[in-house]
Amino acid sequence: MKVVVDAMGGDHAPVAIVAGAVEAVKEFDVEVTLVGIEEEVRRELKKYSYPQERIKVIHAPETVAMDESATVVVRKKRNSSISIGVDLLKDNSEYKAFISAGNTGAVVAASTILLGMLPGVERPAIGLVIPTLNRFSFLIDVGANPDPKPHHLLQSALMANVYTNEILEIANPKIGLLNIGEESTKGTDFVKETHKMMSERLPNFMGNVEPNELFSGKFDCIICDGFVGNALIKVSQGLMESAGALLKREIKKSPIAMLGAFLMKSRLEHIKRYADYSEYGGAPLLGVNGNVMISHGRSGPKAIKNAIRAGLREAEHGILTRLRKEIEG
Amino acid sequence: MKVVVDAMGGDHAPVAIVAGAVEAVKEFDVEVTLVGIEEEVRRELKKYSYPQERIKVIHAPETVAMDESATVVVRKKRNSSISIGVDLLKDNSEYKAFISAGNTGAVVAASTILLGMLPGVERPAIGLVIPTLNRFSFLIDVGANPDPKPHHLLQSALMANVYTNEILEIANPKIGLLNIGEESTKGTDFVKETHKMMSERLPNFMGNVEPNELFSGKFDCIICDGFVGNALIKVSQGLMESAGALLKREIKKSPIAMLGAFLMKSRLEHIKRYADYSEYGGAPLLGVNGNVMISHGRSGPKAIKNAIRAGLREAEHGILTRLRKEIEG
Repeated sequence: MKVVVDAMGGDHAPVAIVAGAVEAVKEFDVEVTLVGIEEEVRRELKKYSYPQERIKVIHAPETVAMDESATVVVRKKRNSSISIGVDLLKDNSEYKAFISAGNTGAVVAASTILLGMLPGVERPAIGLVIPTLNRFSFLIDVGANPDPKPHHLLQSALMANVYTNEILEIANPKIGLLNIGEESTKGTDFVKETHKMMSERLPNFMGNVEPNELFSGKFDCIICDGFVGNALIKVSQGLMESAGALLKREIKKSPIAMLGAFLMKSRLEHIKRYADYSEYGGAPLLGVNGNVMISHGRSGPKAIKNAIRAGLREAEHGILTRLRKEIEG
Repeated sequence: MKVVVDAMGGDHAPVAIVAGAVEAVKEFDVEVTLVGIEEEVRRELKKYSYPQERIKVIHAPETVAMDESATVVVRKKRNSSISIGVDLLKDNSEYKAFISAGNTGAVVAASTILLGMLPGVERPAIGLVIPTLNRFSFLIDVGANPDPKPHHLLQSALMANVYTNEILEIANPKIGLLNIGEESTKGTDFVKETHKMMSERLPNFMGNVEPNELFSGKFDCIICDGFVGNALIKVSQGLMESAGALLKREIKKSPIAMLGAFLMKSRLEHIKRYADYSEYGGAPLLGVNGNVMISHGRSGPKAIKNAIRAGLREAEHGILTRLRKEIEG
């Protein structure tokens, strides 16, 4: 199988992206086409030994900064690694997925415009596989559509239902609507209307889920608008970082505590690995006509490698075919 | 000084509330009037020795469940501990604050209707003092108004400015608007319009703050709507609980790690104490004509005692007078 990877996206591009692509072709049965400034990409590739025929480079003279306006990128930067990468996925049926750790807004906009939407879906949504106390859960939308209508959330829920069933292999996913209270009368008019729609259309809709249950694993799919979803993952990330920094500061005050931390290290590493976003590597952009994986801007080689694996998995499972069938029907 | 305390509010009422009130009269120069089912309250009071003249009981025959509709409570339960408590604050200028760990929606509704709003403020907002890597920050609104207009957020920001200056004693509080991107062009139309209003009206407005900075301490006041604010604190609480449970589960797998945890204990306790909401005890309901403190539903005696202290502090600092002066002017 062949995939396209944006070589210029993310804080550590192209170094980390190229390294991740090399790891991927060594580990998986995949061919990777890297799109980016050819000279820079080839310079990185020279550092590694790998099956040469399995990595191609396509030149994209323009790059996209992480804070550039998405609409400007799509309209004016037709030669960026994002635009060319998405175009390849569209025009060439050989390519099964596009992976980018670049400007999220630009990837969403380019994918929406160039690939088009699946029938029955009006807006794309980004799903995120999150570690919980039990198994993995799926939070959607984490940022594609910050200001949706209730029926957009219903469409996200229908897609999440298929995705968690097919990819996370959960038989009858429990779907919850994120709300600040459990009762159906709680929250904004927007959430109440969404609740009503989901109750009518989704047999496995379990009602509202409060944000403190996000990491408990009680629900398999948690549905929310892109503003709230993005805020939830960012505050969670920030909280863990601040708590970690506070812990380090406290531990350093006492040699006994330092010894304690040392003895706990292997168990802490175990948790860290479980909670590490780079293990899953990418967040699927659902609703567009193609397998697009969005990776964290901070992605290192492992995250990129695993995002490639996640993209391959989507293709192997024929997720687009299932989405087309189950949402329209 | 005299304060009114809702003896029937919260998961551990009246036991924890009475215990907290007893601690408060022993520690602070305060007289507490407990409002609730008199028989139950007096039965609890009998367990303690304390200066008898410093605690009064006023009978309220009705109680409010945590999930009852706020509007129903205010309209039909005029003899609940919440309604009577707020009425006392209104009618009796002796009482300087009302403290409740009960149904938040009912406390907000009763306070808004019975006390009325401060001039220049249309909607109430709940502020929360949160521990950060540096000092304390102030997040507002954490749930009073889930669906506000931009000018409501501006009013919350003006109140937060006064509160953090007067109560947290921060000279020139840095005010940020919670958004999912740093640039002023990011986010929903609602957030963009709020950003514009705040830029025009607040000299110490520093722009957007991303949710991952909430616990970093870079901003002193973080302003958001009540849906997002409530979601942020709930997900933070849930994440710490899930991470803690995961950590315990991992540690129990290894005797060495258990020894390590034991050696770290005193430092962990130190952090726990710092991050413990019961240290601050209550969240001020700002915008209404009275000092109302909302405590966590799980409040124990220490949280109630500290909420009483926080209410006293608001009165001592004449926060209502300052709010009236600075918001209208």
